[in-house]
Amino acid sequence: MSETKTLASYIVTSRIESVPDDVRHEARRAIVNFMGCALGGSVDAAVDRAMQAFGPFSGKPTASILGRGERMDPLHASLMNGISSHVYDFDDTTPKNYVHPTSPVASALFAYASANRVSGRDFMEAFILGFEAESRIANAVYPAHYDVGWHITGTVGVFGAATAIGKLLKLSEQAMIWNIGLAATQAAGLREMFGSMAKALHPGRAAQNGYGSALLAQAGFTAGEHGLEGPRGFAAVQATAYHLWKITTRLGVDFDLRANTYKPFPCGIVNHPTIDGCIQIHDEHHLDPAKIAGVRLRVAPLVMDLCNQRGITKGLQGKFSVYHGAAIGLVRGKAGIQEYTDETVNDPTVRRVRELVTAVGDPSVTEDQARIEVQLASGETLARFVEQSLGNVHRPMDDKQLEDKFRNQAVAALPAAQVEKAIELCWRIDQLDDVAELIRAAVSSGK
Amino acid sequence: MSETKTLASYIVTSRIESVPDDVRHEARRAIVNFMGCALGGSVDAAVDRAMQAFGPFSGKPTASILGRGERMDPLHASLMNGISSHVYDFDDTTPKNYVHPTSPVASALFAYASANRVSGRDFMEAFILGFEAESRIANAVYPAHYDVGWHITGTVGVFGAATAIGKLLKLSEQAMIWNIGLAATQAAGLREMFGSMAKALHPGRAAQNGYGSALLAQAGFTAGEHGLEGPRGFAAVQATAYHLWKITTRLGVDFDLRANTYKPFPCGIVNHPTIDGCIQIHDEHHLDPAKIAGVRLRVAPLVMDLCNQRGITKGLQGKFSVYHGAAIGLVRGKAGIQEYTDETVNDPTVRRVRELVTAVGDPSVTEDQARIEVQLASGETLARFVEQSLGNVHRPMDDKQLEDKFRNQAVAALPAAQVEKAIELCWRIDQLDDVAELIRAAVSSGK
Repeated sequence: MSETKTLASYIVTSRIESVPDDVRHEARRAIVNFMGCALGGSVDAAVDRAMQAFGPFSGKPTASILGRGERMDPLHASLMNGISSHVYDFDDTTPKNYVHPTSPVASALFAYASANRVSGRDFMEAFILGFEAESRIANAVYPAHYDVGWHITGTVGVFGAATAIGKLLKLSEQAMIWNIGLAATQAAGLREMFGSMAKALHPGRAAQNGYGSALLAQAGFTAGEHGLEGPRGFAAVQATAYHLWKITTRLGVDFDLRANTYKPFPCGIVNHPTIDGCIQIHDEHHLDPAKIAGVRLRVAPLVMDLCNQRGITKGLQGKFSVYHGAAIGLVRGKAGIQEYTDETVNDPTVRRVRELVTAVGDPSVTEDQARIEVQLASGETLARFVEQSLGNVHRPMDDKQLEDKFRNQAVAALPAAQVEKAIELCWRIDQLDDVAELIRAAVSSGK
Repeated sequence: MSETKTLASYIVTSRIESVPDDVRHEARRAIVNFMGCALGGSVDAAVDRAMQAFGPFSGKPTASILGRGERMDPLHASLMNGISSHVYDFDDTTPKNYVHPTSPVASALFAYASANRVSGRDFMEAFILGFEAESRIANAVYPAHYDVGWHITGTVGVFGAATAIGKLLKLSEQAMIWNIGLAATQAAGLREMFGSMAKALHPGRAAQNGYGSALLAQAGFTAGEHGLEGPRGFAAVQATAYHLWKITTRLGVDFDLRANTYKPFPCGIVNHPTIDGCIQIHDEHHLDPAKIAGVRLRVAPLVMDLCNQRGITKGLQGKFSVYHGAAIGLVRGKAGIQEYTDETVNDPTVRRVRELVTAVGDPSVTEDQARIEVQLASGETLARFVEQSLGNVHRPMDDKQLEDKFRNQAVAALPAAQVEKAIELCWRIDQLDDVAELIRAAVSSGK
C-alpha cells in the first residue's frame, strides 16, 4: 500500500462533477476570502521588498500579481500572491490541523491562470483537489509535526500547490507520484519565523515550489516514489507520530473544505470572542464611548498568556492585546485592517476605553467564549456572553460577512467599483470561461 | 548567547587575509574538484530536464551554466550548477558530517560571478566562509539530523549558499542574521529521494534558495533572529540532539576545509578500497585480464550490505557492485565515469572478470580497507592489502590526481584544450581580477 500512489491516482482521475454542491460552495467561499486577503496584503512592505529582491530575476512577465500593477513570471507571481494573502494572518484556517490551506494552493493557481487560459471549472477542480491533498497530509502528521515547530502551512502547502498545478498540467499518475515526491523534498518553514515577514514567505515558497515540482515532474525529472510514506519520506522525517491512513481514507467522500473557517478579525484568534461580543454591544446599544466607565472581561486562560499586552503604541501590538480588541469593538463597532494601524492604536478615544478594560483568565470559559460587562457612567451595566465565536466552525461567517471582509481589505488595492466586480466574479468563478476575467478585476489599474 | 548573531558577525567581518595558506590551498582543491564534477554532470539528463522545466521561466540570461551553452538568470543558473555538480555523486564529502559541502556554495557563487564582476580574492573569501558556515551547522546537528532521514547536503547547503552570497553582497550584520533565518526556514531535502534525480535537486535548490535568502535580506525582508538556536529554529526542529557550540567554537581558527575529501571513483565510497587495490595490482603487474582465474575479496561487512549486486546490466547498478568495482580496477586500471556506463558493464572482458569475483564481509576489515587476492591461471596469486583508501582524509588525492579526475569528467562537456585552460585557471582562481575569465573557459562553445 502506497499512500503516495493512491493519492496521485485520485488526483489524476477525480472530476469536479463528483464533488458535492456544498463543498463546491465552500470552495467559492474560500476563494472569496483568499482574494480579499491577497488584495489587502498586496500593499504591504513584505511584498514590496520581495518584489525588489526578485524583480531583476523575473522571467517574462506573463503573470499577474493579485492587487498589483506589476507582472512577473508565473513562479514569482505565485510567491508574491502567497506572501500577500498571508501577511496579515487574515486568511482561512482548518482548526483540525492549523493549516492556512487556501493561500499556497490558490496563489499558484491564480498565477498559472493569469498566464494560461484556464476555465473556471478546471480551476475549481484543481483547487478542491489541491486543498484536499494538502489538508489530508496535514491531518496525517498533526499535531506532532506542528508541535515540534514546523509551520504546517509552509510544509504541507507545497503539496497543495504541486497537486493543484499538476492537475491543470494533466500529469500522468507516474508524473504525479514524482510531483508529490518533489514537493515532499522541498517541504519547509519554521515557526521560529513567526512575528517576521518570513512567516508569509512560507505559503509563498510553498506555492512557488509546488508549481515548480509539477513542472519538473512534467519534464520527466524523477523523484522517490514514496515521498509521503517511505522510511525517509515526509511523514517519518518530519513527524515523530503520524497516521498515514488519514491521507487516503474516504478520499472523494469526506472533504476538509467543510472544516474550513474564516477569520472575521485580523488578529490572534483567541481575541475573537471578546471583539465579537463588544461589537454586538456597540451595535445594539449605539454606545457613546464617552459614557463607558469600565469594562470587565472573563476570558479563557490562554488569552492572558498570549494577548495580555498593555501600554501599546503600535498596530502590530494591538493584534496581541485583548484590551485593544475590546476597545475597538466598543468604540468602532468593527475590527478590520484599519483598526490595527498605529493611528488607531494611538487614537485618544480608543486609548481611553482600552485603559478602562480589565481581564481575568477563567478556566470555565472556553477559547471560543467570552464574558463581557460594560459599566456605563450612568451606573448601568451592559453584559454579554459569547458562547461560540463568530467565524468558528459552529458559527461560520455568512456569505455577506465574507463580502464585507473582502471590501474592508480590497479597498487598499483597488477602486470601489473594481472591488464589487471582483467579488461578483469570485462568487461565480466556476462559471467563467476563462479565470483571467476575474484576475483582470483583481489587479491594480486594470492591467 | 545567540549562535546566529555570532556566526553572522563572523561572516560579515572576516577577511581572507586571516585564513591560513593551507586552508586556502584546500579551497582551491575543492574548486578544482567541484568544477570537474559540474562539467561532467552538465550533460546529464537531469540537467536537461530541469532546463526544459524552468527554461520558459528564466529571467534575463545574464548568468552562465557551467559546462553548457545556454544561459539563464543567476538564480536558475545556481540551481542547474547544483544539479550538475552532484548528479554523479562524485563531488566532495566531509566525512565528519556527511555533507557534500562545495556544491551548494560554489554553484551559487559561480552563477553570481558570471553575472556580476567578482575578483578571485572576493570569490575565495566568500567560498571559504560559506563552506565553514555550512559545515559547522552540519557538525551541530550531525548525526541525529542525518540519521532521521534528512539529506544534510540539501538542508545545511542553503546556509552555505546564503552566507557566501550574503558576503559578496556585503550585507550588514542585521541583514546577515535575517539571511541565516531565511535560509533556516527553507532548509529541506529527504534521503527518501536517493536513487532518483531529486537527490541532485537538493544542492541545486540549496544554492538557489540560499542566493534568494541573501537577496531578500538585502532588500530588508525580515526573518526571525534566532534561526539556528531558537526554540523553534533549525536545530531544535530538525534534530533530536544537537550541539550548538560546534557552530561558533574556534571560528576563524579551525577550518573544516581541512577535513574535506575527494572521491577518486564515481561510486559508493565503501567500494573505494577494493577499486583502489585492484588498480594498484593492474598497474604493478601489467595484468592481462585473460589470465585472471579468480578474485577473492575480504571487505568491511557494510560493503556486503550496500554493494552486493551481481548479475548487473546497467551502469547505475555498477556503482553498487563491489564485483564490478574489482573488475574495472583489474581490467581497465581505472574507474572513471566511462567505467560506469551500460556499455562497460556489459563489456565481455569486464563481465568475465566480474563473474570470477567472490567477496566476504570481515569485521576485522575497516571501511577504509580491503584485502584482495587475484588468482592467475598460472597458479600464481597476487595479493594486496589496502590500509587507507585513496581519497580518505589520511590518504588524500594529490593535486595531480584531482586534475586527472577533472579531465576524466570535463571531456564530456568541453574540448580538450579548454579543459586544460579551465584546470589552470581553477588553480589560480584567487589571483584572477575577474572570475568570469575562468567561467568563460568552463562553458560550452566559449559562450
